[in-house]
Amino acid sequence: ALVDAERGNELRFSAMVQLDSRLFLEGETATGSKLEDGFLLRRIRPTLSGQFAGLGFRIAPELSGNGTGANVALLDAFVDIPTGRTGFLRVGKQKSAISLDRLRVATALPLVERGLANELAPNRDLGLAWYGQAFSGGAQFVLGLFNGAADGRDVALRDDGGKEVHARVFFEPFRNESSLLNGLGFGVSATAGRKRSEGPGAAASASLPRYRSAAQEEFFAYSSGVVADGHHRRLFPQLSYFHRNAGFVAELGVSEQVLQRESQTRRLRHTAYDVTLSWVPTGQPITFRGVQLTGSESALELGLRASGLRIDPRAFEGGLTRFASPDVAARRAQNLGLGLSWHVNRQVKWSLDVNRTRYQGGAPGGADRQTEDVVMGRFQLVY
Amino acid sequence: ALVDAERGNELRFSAMVQLDSRLFLEGETATGSKLEDGFLLRRIRPTLSGQFAGLGFRIAPELSGNGTGANVALLDAFVDIPTGRTGFLRVGKQKSAISLDRLRVATALPLVERGLANELAPNRDLGLAWYGQAFSGGAQFVLGLFNGAADGRDVALRDDGGKEVHARVFFEPFRNESSLLNGLGFGVSATAGRKRSEGPGAAASASLPRYRSAAQEEFFAYSSGVVADGHHRRLFPQLSYFHRNAGFVAELGVSEQVLQRESQTRRLRHTAYDVTLSWVPTGQPITFRGVQLTGSESALELGLRASGLRIDPRAFEGGLTRFASPDVAARRAQNLGLGLSWHVNRQVKWSLDVNRTRYQGGAPGGADRQTEDVVMGRFQLVY
Amino acid sequence: ALVDAERGNELRFSAMVQLDSRLFLEGETATGSKLEDGFLLRRIRPTLSGQFAGLGFRIAPELSGNGTGANVALLDAFVDIPTGRTGFLRVGKQKSAISLDRLRVATALPLVERGLANELAPNRDLGLAWYGQAFSGGAQFVLGLFNGAADGRDVALRDDGGKEVHARVFFEPFRNESSLLNGLGFGVSATAGRKRSEGPGAAASASLPRYRSAAQEEFFAYSSGVVADGHHRRLFPQLSYFHRNAGFVAELGVSEQVLQRESQTRRLRHTAYDVTLSWVPTGQPITFRGVQLTGSESALELGLRASGLRIDPRAFEGGLTRFASPDVAARRAQNLGLGLSWHVNRQVKWSLDVNRTRYQGGAPGGADRQTEDVVMGRFQLVY
Repeated sequence: ALVDAERGNELRFSAMVQLDSRLFLEGETATGSKLEDGFLLRRIRPTLSGQFAGLGFRIAPELSGNGTGANVALLDAFVDIPTGRTGFLRVGKQKSAISLDRLRVATALPLVERGLANELAPNRDLGLAWYGQAFSGGAQFVLGLFNGAADGRDVALRDDGGKEVHARVFFEPFRNESSLLNGLGFGVSATAGRKRSEGPGAAASASLPRYRSAAQEEFFAYSSGVVADGHHRRLFPQLSYFHRNAGFVAELGVSEQVLQRESQTRRLRHTAYDVTLSWVPTGQPITFRGVQLTGSESALELGLRASGLRIDPRAFEGGLTRFASPDVAARRAQNLGLGLSWHVNRQVKWSLDVNRTRYQGGAPGGADRQTEDVVMGRFQLVY
Repeated sequence: ALVDAERGNELRFSAMVQLDSRLFLEGETATGSKLEDGFLLRRIRPTLSGQFAGLGFRIAPELSGNGTGANVALLDAFVDIPTGRTGFLRVGKQKSAISLDRLRVATALPLVERGLANELAPNRDLGLAWYGQAFSGGAQFVLGLFNGAADGRDVALRDDGGKEVHARVFFEPFRNESSLLNGLGFGVSATAGRKRSEGPGAAASASLPRYRSAAQEEFFAYSSGVVADGHHRRLFPQLSYFHRNAGFVAELGVSEQVLQRESQTRRLRHTAYDVTLSWVPTGQPITFRGVQLTGSESALELGLRASGLRIDPRAFEGGLTRFASPDVAARRAQNLGLGLSWHVNRQVKWSLDVNRTRYQGGAPGGADRQTEDVVMGRFQLVY
Repeated sequence: ALVDAERGNELRFSAMVQLDSRLFLEGETATGSKLEDGFLLRRIRPTLSGQFAGLGFRIAPELSGNGTGANVALLDAFVDIPTGRTGFLRVGKQKSAISLDRLRVATALPLVERGLANELAPNRDLGLAWYGQAFSGGAQFVLGLFNGAADGRDVALRDDGGKEVHARVFFEPFRNESSLLNGLGFGVSATAGRKRSEGPGAAASASLPRYRSAAQEEFFAYSSGVVADGHHRRLFPQLSYFHRNAGFVAELGVSEQVLQRESQTRRLRHTAYDVTLSWVPTGQPITFRGVQLTGSESALELGLRASGLRIDPRAFEGGLTRFASPDVAARRAQNLGLGLSWHVNRQVKWSLDVNRTRYQGGAPGGADRQTEDVVMGRFQLVY
């Protein structure tokens, strides 16, 4: 990072580049065509952050898409306003503190992509959140008010009158002790709000979730004509444990939303889980923030993940007015992934990753969609 | 701003962030649905400017939309080429020097948004303009040639063969004297050109104006099928007066354009006005460039505005081939706004603003659209 | 450029601005309407590059379009990984090393736009390429694997399973001798791959080429319903010679692709050439990288170009199922251009350029489209 500091102010320019490749050994789309191999720009994020007039800020444009296209968007744009000695109010567009997997920074993931539970949580949202802590960080709190994003989505605009409240509490009771339980953390996040699909085509469909596999391939979407129309609640119990060169992160996710199609209203509850293990055979310590390297050390990191997502079966009930078609939308996805990363130094990482995702439903005639086997490679540079 | 200066060259990186919220107490869209509350990224502008090889330049991307969406665009991209000691030629994409309200920098507005007269002037345009002055700045001139933007629009592409000439003259006769009239300025801006709507859908509709309320809600647009087809002229007489901790800015706006629908051609003349008062109860001086703070001073600023916009009644004449539908497009809008800003220091400002906009027409059956009452909040950071 | 260097790392911020104007003396679109004059932002490229942890990198967003619109995109995003002392692997989105004309940097073109042969080569692509050399640079090699871009296109996404191999060999045998032949270079580039149009509307049409004149006006596109469906091969023999204040760059281009419309399959081979002469009457030396100025020198540069592009006649064969319509798509384009540039100093350049493009076919009834005469102006600033 390029840092310019004077008189207590600091401007920091940093950049993160992830160049990926995907090779599908097996797998097909809902319409039966082969999934597309190739190179892609996964994340290109020149970031401006700093301390300024007593405030913190971060502006991060994203110069690439999520693997299916290319675009330029504004990922983060927030200001942190201190509230006393141990808290701050974060105002603007920011990462949602709901899924534990999402809270891992994108540069420190043990596998190339995140797991399935994260698909049920909002990605980023626009609003304000208070971050506080007690017991020297042993208890951490988040309380926020946001526009409200659909599961897995990144909200960049106010899209209806219904807002969403976010809350999170996370404990690391032994954080400041040198015990075996020093690296243990557990907690729960929740959201509650109302959501109403509005506006024409694209805006309305962005107000609904679509769930994607580890290779970012969509396996579930609602049928057209379905709109959000009422309460939306989420609950994410979460647990992490890191000790020396090994780590463990797990969470459950529940997303319950009221939707409407024509005159029918249904409250659907989707559930997911994610269990991820990390191990650094070269011995360096690992934390929630990634492998801790000193000097120009190199390290190997192994990641193993099992995750799953289950759509509420009532989504598929009914005849022509069902909320999702079993011929296109999978009822269940089960992911197993194994990743290997070579940290050349603190700045450069090469990763190679194998993921298998098995589906129930989602193919013509209600058959099971073909299992998706993908090899993903990544080159990562952090400046 | 981060400044890198050497050998007469200077590169300056600055940034402006405006995070807004809108809460509609009352108001609805043309189709009768509620206006959307929420948070929004109003302006995120990392800006690169400087002096270089004897030239000035400015490149300012805009990382957010105008309140209804999100996008990334190039706002300013121009080079200033000196022409003698007191003038310069500005080449590229730049702010149009037509509306006095528009010429106020976005960080120094006494209310959160600009008034209605500004809606009749171009926002930004692509071309060249000569900026000159005489009598030590007592007389200021602008003469420009541009692609030609529709009222309130920002032109980023050449869109037809018809160009537009801009001219502005502004006097501050007592500028260099220490008299009561020291802060008095008056002048007039005008544009003249030809405009022809071309190309399919989006491009054609971007060639026509749409007028928006203080909360950036559209209240007037032409019916589909209307195209620009001939002369477009504007006249903006303008006046400003600043004395100590109070200020006054007023202007009239007239925009007259030849349009066509099917075989009918009409010359429509819309008019608007804007009167804005500023007062700094904490006593700091205020100028056209905003409240002047020294050191780490704080200040309060009050703004009061009345503005109005009247559509040419002939726009609504005729049966099915009228140019605008009275059921959707308002005939007249009348805005009253009151704003309060707390300048924490030169970098940070919080604003809170109440605006009422009353309409004539614009609702089904030609009824008056519901009055729009909006509370707008803003957090502003200038680096 | 703003350079920040420490401990062997270097971050370099540079910027390039090209503000253009176009004035069509003659010329019309396929549908017979006048071509659009006006100002445009041709290239606005703030660029971040550097050396970092032993790697080179470059991130260059493009803040403007190619003359017909405006957008923000990611032009370059690559990392160079050294492979021994004289080679490197370039990973990411990068310029394709196929057309010699394309390899000229955009700031050092003798005319405002490139010639017609370049239209048959890919612009930029996503993948990896090894750059190597032997005999102290006397022989240069490129070998790459890419997603595969259509002729003249810039690929930003993986778009099908068919990849493309790039190869280039270029010789400068007398490069290190002080002989008359010192500035002679010759070589050949080639691509080979498979291409399949996939996905709906926009994505599918981006998988096919469209060819454009010197003024960036499209004169050839396939009829709708045509898709890429098989091999795509290109061959570009190329030659350059620079001596003192004069230079010569020439190339041939052949692009052969298998396409399908309904049940018909055709292998079409388009050909093009480009010959460009540069002369610096003020005497400064010129190389492939442009006029070499020292200190605050000024220079004049003259450029003269003849280039042509010929569509495979079989594209127009057949009745309603022909691959291109002779009423809209030209069969042949012949370009003659003359350019004058005034290098004010190393940073600032003004250019004025006259181009005539004559067409065969491409107008209603299979008539020849009107000759296109355009005067193009450019202001260029390089920081």
